Amino acid sequence: MVDASGDVFLLPGPVKMDPRVLQAMSVPAMNHRGPEFKEVLSEIRALTQYMFGTNGEVAVLSGSGTAGLEAAVSGLVRKEDRVLNLVNGKFSERFHELCQVFARPTALTFEWGSAVDPRQVAAALDADEFKAVTVCWNETSTGLTNPIAEIAKVVKARDAFLLVDGITAVAGLENRMEAWGIDALVMGSQKCLAAPPGLSAVALSKRAYESLHSDTSFYTNLKAHVDALAKQDTPFTPAVPLFLAFREALRLLKAEGLETRITRTSRLAEAARAAIDALGLELYPDRRYASNTVTAIRYPPGIDDAKFRKELRERHRTIVAGGQAQLKGQIFRIGHMGICSFKDLEAGFAAFEATLATMGHPSPHGAAPSAIEKRA
Amino acid sequence: MVDASGDVFLLPGPVKMDPRVLQAMSVPAMNHRGPEFKEVLSEIRALTQYMFGTNGEVAVLSGSGTAGLEAAVSGLVRKEDRVLNLVNGKFSERFHELCQVFARPTALTFEWGSAVDPRQVAAALDADEFKAVTVCWNETSTGLTNPIAEIAKVVKARDAFLLVDGITAVAGLENRMEAWGIDALVMGSQKCLAAPPGLSAVALSKRAYESLHSDTSFYTNLKAHVDALAKQDTPFTPAVPLFLAFREALRLLKAEGLETRITRTSRLAEAARAAIDALGLELYPDRRYASNTVTAIRYPPGIDDAKFRKELRERHRTIVAGGQAQLKGQIFRIGHMGICSFKDLEAGFAAFEATLATMGHPSPHGAAPSAIEKRA
Repeated sequence: MVDASGDVFLLPGPVKMDPRVLQAMSVPAMNHRGPEFKEVLSEIRALTQYMFGTNGEVAVLSGSGTAGLEAAVSGLVRKEDRVLNLVNGKFSERFHELCQVFARPTALTFEWGSAVDPRQVAAALDADEFKAVTVCWNETSTGLTNPIAEIAKVVKARDAFLLVDGITAVAGLENRMEAWGIDALVMGSQKCLAAPPGLSAVALSKRAYESLHSDTSFYTNLKAHVDALAKQDTPFTPAVPLFLAFREALRLLKAEGLETRITRTSRLAEAARAAIDALGLELYPDRRYASNTVTAIRYPPGIDDAKFRKELRERHRTIVAGGQAQLKGQIFRIGHMGICSFKDLEAGFAAFEATLATMGHPSPHGAAPSAIEKRA
Repeated sequence: MVDASGDVFLLPGPVKMDPRVLQAMSVPAMNHRGPEFKEVLSEIRALTQYMFGTNGEVAVLSGSGTAGLEAAVSGLVRKEDRVLNLVNGKFSERFHELCQVFARPTALTFEWGSAVDPRQVAAALDADEFKAVTVCWNETSTGLTNPIAEIAKVVKARDAFLLVDGITAVAGLENRMEAWGIDALVMGSQKCLAAPPGLSAVALSKRAYESLHSDTSFYTNLKAHVDALAKQDTPFTPAVPLFLAFREALRLLKAEGLETRITRTSRLAEAARAAIDALGLELYPDRRYASNTVTAIRYPPGIDDAKFRKELRERHRTIVAGGQAQLKGQIFRIGHMGICSFKDLEAGFAAFEATLATMGHPSPHGAAPSAIEKRA
């Protein structure tokens, strides 16, 4: 089963979309202040709470994941506040850069491919006063999932806000935001939800909602977005077609069931890791923390990244991502979140196997796809 | 000719879209860092310059008009800078509120429905030091076009930056941004371009581009957006379907010709004003400054806004906007920008005529539609 485009589309986002989600966008202009769109927003709010597993306040912003992160940071901390940024990849670095605009951040860094160590977080929080801690739950750049429950426990015990980039985590990884004590959790439309890119959503704890201020943001003013949505409205003109597609993707998530999607995502990840073993390749991150939504794979010696991905694209219509920043040329990355199927993964790994073989890295024929099929 | 939905859709934005624009969105996921999307961005950049009538730097942001305004303000002024906001309607008020977050603004207010007086602007700039002036070129809330060339002349002579909300002006009103001396001009996708809502674009003068800083914004960091687009890239994940629709709408604008669209918009406005006379109604704004893209019409005594628009919607499938803020209940507003046709206007005015007649405000049967037909 390949994408409607005929491609095997395995990016770590945007991801393959259901035809119903695509079709939801192509509708004539709608009055975003009229009764019809109020119903859309009402349904979106309820289903967004379902997606986050919360009864608390949520917002949906007309802006991609970074807009959601900015809304959380700018709404909860102020320029004079110290913020501890846990950094172990490109997206947690970006979170740190964002905090430089809105707060006084300090980066606590960990090697790329290794997880955030909660004990070091505890030590940093014990040594200094921080208003908030940021973490990238699932580091898309390294294919690594940080131990969010343990990190949250440490942060909660020290009374700081915990702001979480869950862009490639929410609706793909097990989430107990209320029990764990996450204060702001951000998702991106084009990842585990499998909607088009361009929207982000934020879920807040009760104490976070009560602390929101409006001093340093306008377009991403989180309080304005949350309060408007509670009244089936938006503070500014919403990206209507994306909201319609987002609603459709949420309906599909609800129909599949959140738990079912998370379990299926985890089985796909296990199958991908088994197939990597069958190809004689290595995972990039610490295997104990390997992500269930994004898999990052080291190139074997002699395999050129640009050539490999060009071959995949042109001969096998298979789309994967390369490495970012210092990992450029060293790894490639695949997404298996959202509505990705075992057949998608099988087709992808068959293409990897064939391409690696022509480039001087042969492996037993059919071993990788069959490793996936066995787990389907 | 009514909208594909069967509606006569006459909001002052979002506006009716061409089926090709709608269809452009429903395509499978695309790698926004791949060669195909680079071509999309390249074409969008060139056509956006065409739309603004500039060879200077432009940006397209994944966020609605307010995001574009925020990008211009946050990129060009700093928290300690004084900014003069020219305020004569709801959207210029919002521009003032936005400046409260990013600068030290002073509002120079004019009565709603009357135009900004360039002499008062000159006096204000002579009395105090201001880094920038903001103006809403076309006040959508009052259906009024401010005398932008005269305002620009005054501001340019005093060396302040001129930041212009052109959300319902660009591609609908004659624009000589370079000759007049506009430093930042912002448009919204869902207005005169007739693309879906959710994107905004900004065009900059040379000196404005050279003055951009990145201190107070992140998602709307204008320098990051401009520089990325010049390299066929975006700083953050773009709203891909909206970019594809935006490109299609730009292609249609180019095919029609910018000057032709502006002239057609002006003829539609004249026809609308003639039809208002035929209905025995009054324009809300000072007629000398009546907008060519949005017409605001006073209700005659005894006509209830909610009832009138409900009748229009339910009996005639005709969608118009009410008044905002203090104008709620006093006016209704129609848009005749983008791909609005004379037939759309005729159908709309036939519905107004019939509805007003049933509500106790009769006028000669068919006079309003025929006033339009005569000017088609």
